Amino acid sequence: MEKKIKLGIIGAGRIGKLHTENVLFNINYVEVKAIADVYADKIKDWAYGLGIKNVYADYKEILNDPEIDAVMICSSTDTHSQITIEAANAGKHIFCEKPIDFDLDRIHQALDAVKKAGVKFQVGFNRRFDHNFKKVRELVKEGKIGDPHIIKITSRDPQPPPIEYVKVSGGIFLDMTIHDFDMARYLSGSEVVEVYTNAAVLVDPAIGAAGDVDTAVITLKFANGAIGVIDNSRRAAYGYDQRVEVFGSKGCVTVSNDTPSSVVLSTEDGVFSDKPKYFFLERYKDSFVDEVKEFFDSILNNKETPVTGIDGLKPVLIGLAAKKSYETGKPVKVE
Amino acid sequence: MEKKIKLGIIGAGRIGKLHTENVLFNINYVEVKAIADVYADKIKDWAYGLGIKNVYADYKEILNDPEIDAVMICSSTDTHSQITIEAANAGKHIFCEKPIDFDLDRIHQALDAVKKAGVKFQVGFNRRFDHNFKKVRELVKEGKIGDPHIIKITSRDPQPPPIEYVKVSGGIFLDMTIHDFDMARYLSGSEVVEVYTNAAVLVDPAIGAAGDVDTAVITLKFANGAIGVIDNSRRAAYGYDQRVEVFGSKGCVTVSNDTPSSVVLSTEDGVFSDKPKYFFLERYKDSFVDEVKEFFDSILNNKETPVTGIDGLKPVLIGLAAKKSYETGKPVKVE
Amino acid sequence: MEKKIKLGIIGAGRIGKLHTENVLFNINYVEVKAIADVYADKIKDWAYGLGIKNVYADYKEILNDPEIDAVMICSSTDTHSQITIEAANAGKHIFCEKPIDFDLDRIHQALDAVKKAGVKFQVGFNRRFDHNFKKVRELVKEGKIGDPHIIKITSRDPQPPPIEYVKVSGGIFLDMTIHDFDMARYLSGSEVVEVYTNAAVLVDPAIGAAGDVDTAVITLKFANGAIGVIDNSRRAAYGYDQRVEVFGSKGCVTVSNDTPSSVVLSTEDGVFSDKPKYFFLERYKDSFVDEVKEFFDSILNNKETPVTGIDGLKPVLIGLAAKKSYETGKPVKVE
Amino acid sequence: MEKKIKLGIIGAGRIGKLHTENVLFNINYVEVKAIADVYADKIKDWAYGLGIKNVYADYKEILNDPEIDAVMICSSTDTHSQITIEAANAGKHIFCEKPIDFDLDRIHQALDAVKKAGVKFQVGFNRRFDHNFKKVRELVKEGKIGDPHIIKITSRDPQPPPIEYVKVSGGIFLDMTIHDFDMARYLSGSEVVEVYTNAAVLVDPAIGAAGDVDTAVITLKFANGAIGVIDNSRRAAYGYDQRVEVFGSKGCVTVSNDTPSSVVLSTEDGVFSDKPKYFFLERYKDSFVDEVKEFFDSILNNKETPVTGIDGLKPVLIGLAAKKSYETGKPVKVE
Repeated sequence: MEKKIKLGIIGAGRIGKLHTENVLFNINYVEVKAIADVYADKIKDWAYGLGIKNVYADYKEILNDPEIDAVMICSSTDTHSQITIEAANAGKHIFCEKPIDFDLDRIHQALDAVKKAGVKFQVGFNRRFDHNFKKVRELVKEGKIGDPHIIKITSRDPQPPPIEYVKVSGGIFLDMTIHDFDMARYLSGSEVVEVYTNAAVLVDPAIGAAGDVDTAVITLKFANGAIGVIDNSRRAAYGYDQRVEVFGSKGCVTVSNDTPSSVVLSTEDGVFSDKPKYFFLERYKDSFVDEVKEFFDSILNNKETPVTGIDGLKPVLIGLAAKKSYETGKPVKVE
Repeated sequence: MEKKIKLGIIGAGRIGKLHTENVLFNINYVEVKAIADVYADKIKDWAYGLGIKNVYADYKEILNDPEIDAVMICSSTDTHSQITIEAANAGKHIFCEKPIDFDLDRIHQALDAVKKAGVKFQVGFNRRFDHNFKKVRELVKEGKIGDPHIIKITSRDPQPPPIEYVKVSGGIFLDMTIHDFDMARYLSGSEVVEVYTNAAVLVDPAIGAAGDVDTAVITLKFANGAIGVIDNSRRAAYGYDQRVEVFGSKGCVTVSNDTPSSVVLSTEDGVFSDKPKYFFLERYKDSFVDEVKEFFDSILNNKETPVTGIDGLKPVLIGLAAKKSYETGKPVKVE
Repeated sequence: MEKKIKLGIIGAGRIGKLHTENVLFNINYVEVKAIADVYADKIKDWAYGLGIKNVYADYKEILNDPEIDAVMICSSTDTHSQITIEAANAGKHIFCEKPIDFDLDRIHQALDAVKKAGVKFQVGFNRRFDHNFKKVRELVKEGKIGDPHIIKITSRDPQPPPIEYVKVSGGIFLDMTIHDFDMARYLSGSEVVEVYTNAAVLVDPAIGAAGDVDTAVITLKFANGAIGVIDNSRRAAYGYDQRVEVFGSKGCVTVSNDTPSSVVLSTEDGVFSDKPKYFFLERYKDSFVDEVKEFFDSILNNKETPVTGIDGLKPVLIGLAAKKSYETGKPVKVE
Repeated sequence: MEKKIKLGIIGAGRIGKLHTENVLFNINYVEVKAIADVYADKIKDWAYGLGIKNVYADYKEILNDPEIDAVMICSSTDTHSQITIEAANAGKHIFCEKPIDFDLDRIHQALDAVKKAGVKFQVGFNRRFDHNFKKVRELVKEGKIGDPHIIKITSRDPQPPPIEYVKVSGGIFLDMTIHDFDMARYLSGSEVVEVYTNAAVLVDPAIGAAGDVDTAVITLKFANGAIGVIDNSRRAAYGYDQRVEVFGSKGCVTVSNDTPSSVVLSTEDGVFSDKPKYFFLERYKDSFVDEVKEFFDSILNNKETPVTGIDGLKPVLIGLAAKKSYETGKPVKVE
């Protein structure tokens, strides 16, 4: 390729930095031309060290740079939809971290702007690119398990986030389970039409005091007749527990957790093996690389992104229904 | 031991024969004095071959034999409660196959008779004696996983029963899931207070035509605050799938399926291992022996049976609630 | 079957008692007519309790009983060949515990007597009947791994035997590895033609003082060109370690150890699973039943026993070569 | 860090390219200043694309560049010792691919030059940096398995190399097993003092015609009394098989193969899982990064390299002994 895609990154917190380095070290046809962060001063050393010359406090400088082809929106959640609209209007291709927004109107406005501008748009549901889940999806798609009947997702964090974060997170269903709702759609190849939530505060009363729950079992009805169940906990003592299972008319496919090593130690005291990789940065390391690779490949070869605007919208709809189900104690239709 | 416990077996179908042989080959202080079956002629050769001298068509002959200390009720489900009442009145200790009855009044009458007579009474929830599930229960009881938060039970049959059986089975929740309801109580050490059922006909339309479902995901609320989920299918292409998982404040315990061997074959085509043991007779072989051993041990040492009348009643209550939840599409309180 | 096979058991130590109970509880066409043990008084209660009426101090009473069809020789190793000869001369079918003898001449005399008498003869290499190893053999025989290239056997005991036993055991190669030599022949379907032994005293100096070793790695050359390796230890801290692997032109088959349960416990401290079943009585429980079932089936249906006299002889030859290799530090041809 | 380490890479075949990219994408304090390859024209596009400005046909241009601090020698095996000597004389730190040489004198000359120059020297035994083997070594070092008694290494390639390569490879023991000899030393923490080789041509007669073998079982005696065994095959139908096991007085540690995913598919036909990662580039991907990271860290912090000149020498000595053992049919002392 002669000309490099010129990229601007908006927001250089943990995930923004991760994407920046992944692009720099793995995709040679993309140039990170500029980074914007409200705390521009704090990230300058890091950015310059990586050879990135333009560091702005205001993301609009990126949107105003006509040379920039694409942006990655990694700023705080409440800014995603607004920046998406502005970036679309500026004709930039957009990779937007999840969720687009908690407000349905604003999601629709953002998706409308994207549509009107005809730019590429991808939402950061990175787990679809995980080596294990991707393989499960492939097997399901190939019909190896026949028609899906039961989809099971286990998703447990090693530690709850700080209470301050919990308060602004949108609640467990929109903050944490949203990834699992995406996974449910991805694995089943079908839409969720109804949810029922069984949830409780079992991990930390402070989470309850902040108006949220920390433990949940959510059942799903799919358009294709399949039934799903997601179980969540904000705290698994043994680490990040991320497993899925799809059972169908011809069989069942499961994945277990990734571990740092395959070592098994047998002693008088028992047989010991590794705990799962600690948290999402370790477990989903490669998936973060692969999602951005596919985003830029969509631009380069002008094809649909692997996680579309609809894929960004639907999990929010399911999450809102899950929340309502918890509040009412009844099953709730999605939309 | 000087004197043997004298036993009468009522009903010599598949499970009655299994119990008979298990007692004969494994418990040397019990004498099988008599067997009754409505098709007495058909079982005579088998019984005499085992050295059992008395084969009756009418179970009352067993109840009327003053030498007989205990009976095992293995006849058809609709006779369980009636024979239990009569056997209790005759002063016999009782091992009764599950379920005691589908009718709550009759269960209560049976349990009242047992109580009044002061005889031992055990219900045939054999899975509690399975080497894997027993070990899970022990670990939970020892506090190894802390307080239980999420209980997950997978229970899938290799093949649906004949449609004629489905019609009189009482429905999947009272016929199949009833074992899982027992397991839920056993593993959690807590009572189920509410259920929500998500079920469908995905395996065979004939099951739907017979008024039943064949696929279900049932969520449970426990008195101790934990949440449970059971998933059922009448047909797992790969065989009998029986796994449980208990997740708690300090960790998680899981069991995988038993297999005929631990062989792993690696070839150009992939890595192959054994399917689960085919069905309940293979998987739960030893548990059937152990449950009767403990029953006779309860008699011998005059202690409580490991599966009491209440343990026989509760899963029926949960099953009825699960059924009602399916019919109404809403969560249903138990009792 | 009309007439039962009448059996006499010679030697009622641990293994003799095990065989007796296995026959009584599992094979209904065999009658244990008599038991002989030099300590007849000590076993009478046990024998009478099982309904065995004839308990002798002298095994000749069994050989002299014309009604007895078959004997199981479970007495001390130094008597095996002599009793085999006498039993064959008396026209009894013979199940003989391993080894037939440590002395090649006496083995040949015993096998000659068997041949002349035309009686059935089976040696107690029970591991051939283990569910795992049997399955490995079947896969190898079916050509699933192609031509065998490398055969690996891991065989480690949980505890060394008492030093007094070590002194009269014939040494590790004839006492412990002999089972692995049999397994090597069984799995490969080929004869061992050369051995090289690398051995040491690493577990207990007292074993060395008794003239034996406790740790060994023995390589084997097979007639079909394959190469084998056995590793032994008298003490595995985690229990009885019994695994095999056969690698060939088309793939590889392995088996792992049997465990009491499939429980996996995950906590902050790690992921724990069961140690192997403790020792041979637990691990090979079913194989002891199956080997005697096949012995009596050979009598009943007049077919070759599954472990012949040659199968009893060959591992002794290999064991003697392994011993010589250890003493000379050089590879040694078998025979 | 203010100043970057300036690196020259000598030889840009498969491994040279891999190291180059690993350095560029993973170590930000190293600058690849120049690359030399006898086919300089063929690698120019690749090198320029990576931003490397100096591409030479003659490696001496690198050695003559006073700015260059370190070199990685990735040229053909027969040039390793000569270039090592020249690079040491030029005062460059050296990372040298294995083996240093097949000739002991030349190895000694190279190591002498390194010693005299006082430069860092590391040999490319990358497997020591594999996540699994490293963890095994740590557990052994921490005493978790007590004193090592038995070390087992399984090392099988998915496909034999081309016959032309076999002819100049130095033979299986110096080309393939050399990695396992290094692993044996690494895992045991002890020196190999004697080897016995059992080898054959079972995979491809053409390998035999080329004067080499393709299947081997090699036993090792260690200075600390432990016994080892390595099994090799040039062709495992199911892929790259790389497992180790260390058994000791207090327990045993094993590792299984890495797989692309943890997917398990259960169907009517059986239970299927992934084959091992295909070959060394996939399996040892991260170890290649980690070994160079540690090399540059040794330079940066002026400490001993993790794989020294002695570590480069010893496996050659063992390999030569293994070869001699095969030729003579007898155990051979190392050195």
